[in-house]
Amino acid sequence: MLGSTHGSLSTDPRSARAVACGERPGPAVHGAADLDVSGRPLYAPVPDLDRFFRPETVAVIGASDAEGKPNTGITRQLMAWSDRVGARLLPVNPGRETVFGLACHASAAELPQPVDLAVLLVSDPLPVIEELADAKAKFAVAFASGFAETGAAGTAAQRRLAEAVSRSGLRLLGPNTNLNAFERFRDDLEGPAIALITQSGHQGRPVFALQELGIRLSHWAPTGNEADLEAADFISYFAERPEVGAIAAYVEGLKDGRSFMLAADRAARNKVPIVAIKVGRTETGARTAASHTGKLTGSDAVTDAAFKQFGVIRVDGLDELQDTAHLLARAKPPSAEGVVVYSISGGTGAHFSDLASAAGLSLPVLSEDKQAELHQWIPEYLSVANPVDNGGHPVGDWRGRRIIDAILADPSVGVLVCPITGPFPPMSDKLAQDLVDAAEHTDKLVCVVWGSPVGTEEAYRSTLLGSSKVATFRTFGNCVTAIKAYLQHHRFVADYRSPFTDAPRTLSPSVRKARPLLRKGQRLSEHAAKQLLRAYGIRVPREQLVNSAAGAVRAAGLVGYPIVMKASGAQLSHKTELGLVRIGLTSASQVRDAYRELTDIARFWNIDLDGVLVCQMVEQGVEMVVGVHHDPLFGPTVTVGLGGVLVEVLRDTAVRVPPFGPQEAHAMLRELRGYPLLEGARGQPPADADALVDVILRVQRMAMELDDSLAELDINPLMVLPRGQGAVALDALAVCR
Amino acid sequence: MLGSTHGSLSTDPRSARAVACGERPGPAVHGAADLDVSGRPLYAPVPDLDRFFRPETVAVIGASDAEGKPNTGITRQLMAWSDRVGARLLPVNPGRETVFGLACHASAAELPQPVDLAVLLVSDPLPVIEELADAKAKFAVAFASGFAETGAAGTAAQRRLAEAVSRSGLRLLGPNTNLNAFERFRDDLEGPAIALITQSGHQGRPVFALQELGIRLSHWAPTGNEADLEAADFISYFAERPEVGAIAAYVEGLKDGRSFMLAADRAARNKVPIVAIKVGRTETGARTAASHTGKLTGSDAVTDAAFKQFGVIRVDGLDELQDTAHLLARAKPPSAEGVVVYSISGGTGAHFSDLASAAGLSLPVLSEDKQAELHQWIPEYLSVANPVDNGGHPVGDWRGRRIIDAILADPSVGVLVCPITGPFPPMSDKLAQDLVDAAEHTDKLVCVVWGSPVGTEEAYRSTLLGSSKVATFRTFGNCVTAIKAYLQHHRFVADYRSPFTDAPRTLSPSVRKARPLLRKGQRLSEHAAKQLLRAYGIRVPREQLVNSAAGAVRAAGLVGYPIVMKASGAQLSHKTELGLVRIGLTSASQVRDAYRELTDIARFWNIDLDGVLVCQMVEQGVEMVVGVHHDPLFGPTVTVGLGGVLVEVLRDTAVRVPPFGPQEAHAMLRELRGYPLLEGARGQPPADADALVDVILRVQRMAMELDDSLAELDINPLMVLPRGQGAVALDALAVCR
Repeated sequence: MLGSTHGSLSTDPRSARAVACGERPGPAVHGAADLDVSGRPLYAPVPDLDRFFRPETVAVIGASDAEGKPNTGITRQLMAWSDRVGARLLPVNPGRETVFGLACHASAAELPQPVDLAVLLVSDPLPVIEELADAKAKFAVAFASGFAETGAAGTAAQRRLAEAVSRSGLRLLGPNTNLNAFERFRDDLEGPAIALITQSGHQGRPVFALQELGIRLSHWAPTGNEADLEAADFISYFAERPEVGAIAAYVEGLKDGRSFMLAADRAARNKVPIVAIKVGRTETGARTAASHTGKLTGSDAVTDAAFKQFGVIRVDGLDELQDTAHLLARAKPPSAEGVVVYSISGGTGAHFSDLASAAGLSLPVLSEDKQAELHQWIPEYLSVANPVDNGGHPVGDWRGRRIIDAILADPSVGVLVCPITGPFPPMSDKLAQDLVDAAEHTDKLVCVVWGSPVGTEEAYRSTLLGSSKVATFRTFGNCVTAIKAYLQHHRFVADYRSPFTDAPRTLSPSVRKARPLLRKGQRLSEHAAKQLLRAYGIRVPREQLVNSAAGAVRAAGLVGYPIVMKASGAQLSHKTELGLVRIGLTSASQVRDAYRELTDIARFWNIDLDGVLVCQMVEQGVEMVVGVHHDPLFGPTVTVGLGGVLVEVLRDTAVRVPPFGPQEAHAMLRELRGYPLLEGARGQPPADADALVDVILRVQRMAMELDDSLAELDINPLMVLPRGQGAVALDALAVCR
Repeated sequence: MLGSTHGSLSTDPRSARAVACGERPGPAVHGAADLDVSGRPLYAPVPDLDRFFRPETVAVIGASDAEGKPNTGITRQLMAWSDRVGARLLPVNPGRETVFGLACHASAAELPQPVDLAVLLVSDPLPVIEELADAKAKFAVAFASGFAETGAAGTAAQRRLAEAVSRSGLRLLGPNTNLNAFERFRDDLEGPAIALITQSGHQGRPVFALQELGIRLSHWAPTGNEADLEAADFISYFAERPEVGAIAAYVEGLKDGRSFMLAADRAARNKVPIVAIKVGRTETGARTAASHTGKLTGSDAVTDAAFKQFGVIRVDGLDELQDTAHLLARAKPPSAEGVVVYSISGGTGAHFSDLASAAGLSLPVLSEDKQAELHQWIPEYLSVANPVDNGGHPVGDWRGRRIIDAILADPSVGVLVCPITGPFPPMSDKLAQDLVDAAEHTDKLVCVVWGSPVGTEEAYRSTLLGSSKVATFRTFGNCVTAIKAYLQHHRFVADYRSPFTDAPRTLSPSVRKARPLLRKGQRLSEHAAKQLLRAYGIRVPREQLVNSAAGAVRAAGLVGYPIVMKASGAQLSHKTELGLVRIGLTSASQVRDAYRELTDIARFWNIDLDGVLVCQMVEQGVEMVVGVHHDPLFGPTVTVGLGGVLVEVLRDTAVRVPPFGPQEAHAMLRELRGYPLLEGARGQPPADADALVDVILRVQRMAMELDDSLAELDINPLMVLPRGQGAVALDALAVCR
């Protein structure tokens, strides 16, 4: 199942990609109209990086052959690399005639011909970029550090560099990067490859080292500070390359949320998995990452949501990155979701199955017939239901291979895992060989866990790592993580539909009603905020804003008893705690008393009111919150959560980045720990989840259309009524930019 | 900090243990009085297993030298082992004169002398056990399978075997076990060792293989079906051995909850860490484990709680078991909790710090002075606050060691971690050597993560694994897990107080009031269940059970308006859903109406009532649940949870196994996700947590004293009032055995 490419051209996404490569739609066919209503692009061109990764001419600015200079080592490395790939190297250094015997040029401006790539080994790349303008180079790489990673002055210098790049017409990698893209890649390895993107060279080393274990790597893009080219550019490019089976990324911070989303969308459409580490789960991590490559990490929850929306698989450890990317790169799509655990020890089978089930993998019980078939070779007293325990002995002879083939032939089985906890060469060597042989004759995924901590054993080094069809792991945990990611990825891409296709491009009529309600830099009163909701078709209770006790009584008659009364004012928060809410009022006299009390309290605290709200009382339903918050990387985001105590104490919320559709909004709800409440826990009727989704989508539309003027919105609570009865926003807070 | 034993005899727990070994209190000094009120032992003797692990005479029952017989291989292995340790081997086989040249005996009964150990290589060990009675053997090991792991008949056969063992006076390991205890252990390794307990031989292999990485292993006990000797016996024994630094265990099921708790208590008192995998997180795992060694896994949540109560560190993967046990075995207690991350790459430092912080480790920011000191050797533009990023170059010369020593000298630092993500021999070889050298001169913990997936590098194999002072890991994740366990273990044992010391041994006066309320095999009515609570001093609302409308009105006057009325009957559940509860009644006429309605509904549904409860209304407080449930392994357990929607939808509960004290009860509360509600979330006053703890402890007492007759108890809700005002049980359900 691992290894070579698929059979038929017509159904093979890789072949489709290969074709697409030749006819990349350039930005010309897309214009300014390709923006959504928030003004963000709906399309990103794929940069043509062929000549970056395979330059035919390479200028080395600052080349040297002087003993002991750091640039000398780099020049030597580039010369060796150029030799190997057949590129022509042009050294540039004003102080030398030749470098390593090659004629040296005095400056970038004096290069005798345009080059594909200029490597800038100088402390200030800016003047060189200016010299390289007018198509003297397609690409440049800048090593120099001291930019955004060092603070405000560095950030300004980086901005000037980016502007020079933008004027020059070339594309820049860096600054604060290195030569990882031009390392020695093994070209004797077969099958789909991993393409690697890192924002720290050192952190990419273990993935690069996978080549020593027989796993193919096609590219490495160390993006550094991303003054110009960013991780998203490489994701788009790799997602179109036929040899790329998976993209592995080590990310400290994204340059821009939308460009990342567009790139990840391209990968999802092309069914190319992205496995990524993203630093910034904690404050410590975020702060440290910022001082390393000068990137904003944004809100971790928002980045996590964007990853989920585009099927990006997030992992924590470099070992998980390696193991998951490796499996996803090479394994063909599963024919079934069932996982069978096969082992020479009942304990091993029990342990692995326990971890696999706990992770949510499905371990089907094998059919009676299949079990009878396996019992031809495995003693009756051993359980072969799944896990299949062979007791050890059948592995040593002809039965070993039969058992494996019989399991793989079962239609419920998509994945066979064989954990080999302890090496016992008479058994484990034969078992490893049988697994490798069987994997050659199946389209199904065969995984092995080599559990020995030693790792110098022959069966591991030669037999298992020598196979491009068996996926070999060193721990149960990583094997389970990778299989789970593999099944999830294929489920995700099978159903994937780009949210950019349906994203709104033109303003809705709502926006005309909404704009006049906004007050630059201010908070809106509850009443104004509810008018904003109404403008977007979100239901609010029948209510009237009144300014006298008599008006309140009249309003109560129109709204209908019982009613709720609340003070309304732009500065007002903590209404409940201040005693500025009265519920369940059933008579005119109660309404009059309440009006007097509310205005008295407001006067006492010196709170300006725009009036008192007389509202319809809405009782039966599930209290939710729906809100809009602004993320520095991604822009407006939409949040939903269970209301009341659940959201405040348990922070039980789900967030998404626009644009997203109703399916994604439903997925938000299922993500909540309190979701069973919406389904009707404790004998309550199920809530109107469709109405809730409708509110989420209307709020999304508002967030996108008013992005330039709405800083924050919170509907709290949104009362979701029983199924078929809708949802009502009982209170709302809005803050304008 | 890793390695040799501590300095002073008086403060060294290991030395104390060595002394204790010589004067183990035998069971004679403890008698039948050493039981708690539930009838469970408060003391377990330490079995003397010296002659099991180091027998001087070994009889092999079923010894063979016939080519091709499985027993021949085992006999050969035992002969080699006996030769090596200087034991005398006596073959037993009725069909042979000699085995491998040794005179053979016809039967166990005819052995010429008593032996320390009899190895039973026969399919039916029972008659041999009978022949070995009367002190003919101290220990026996039974290989045969086909016992409790195969079902009911096997379980009966195992019971007969256990009875024979009990009559015989010897101690048995097995059945369904093997010779792992008598493998070839390396005796050239130094420092505290890992002692290993497994219920599956294969699963112990990777831990045993740690010796190939230079980590010392002292014992291996493969306990099999545990007809006699069980994991707990080995825990107790290992906890008293001076050479044992940590106990590593692979557990599929415990034989008995209390014997495990007593053994773990001994280990905690002796400050010996136990690191354990326990299969059974899922139904699949539990079922498979049962078919492997025939053990009940019990409730996973309860076992998990017992682990927590005695500081047993639970891990999931065999790799985590190895890495955590290894670190805990060798590292000395920390002098501080601070962790400093030191690396040659800013990315590596950011990534590791992020994972470490997310796991709750404390990464102190180094002082200005310390940072200035580090900047003598590290360029100013690199951050050395923690993580310390040296940028690479200082590692290559004399500065490398200075930096490490300077970090270790900081009093806020207890642990130094150096993740070496990618090997670059000019730097990483020197760095590894410096770390190894520095570790020789400090009492602090030095950890290294060797991130290369290849693992054949010289710096890893020779330098790092050659050190007994540096703890070397292969993944960030396992390093973080192990450091966390290390700090937690030392915090735990420093504060540890055995719960068995204070466990109740004599019945309280409550039990005399409680017993007459119980009804064998039946559910109690709400009213009776509340009387049970009252017998144990748990507050219930003022209430009266009435049988007429007039009685209800009289009762309401005595209880005080507003009141709650509820139907009360033994069969009654779902009172609220059936409309059998009325709250907030404020007048005699409402009470009369309610009485009529409740009895009408009960009549309609044909429900027998013992009357109608007229209860005081208690409103303000936090709703909790407190309950007692029975676990097949551990007996009665006590549960607490947030009430209402939280417990039903989120299953937000904490459980403990008696006996436990008030500290543990407070820990239960802090474990709840909804704990902030008790602290006073949303502007509410803090709840009376002490009163809640008091109820938990009273319920525990009840559970222990009535264990033989009380099957289940649920107080739901227990209303916990604001601080200083107590807690009131508003409803309760009790089921008798």
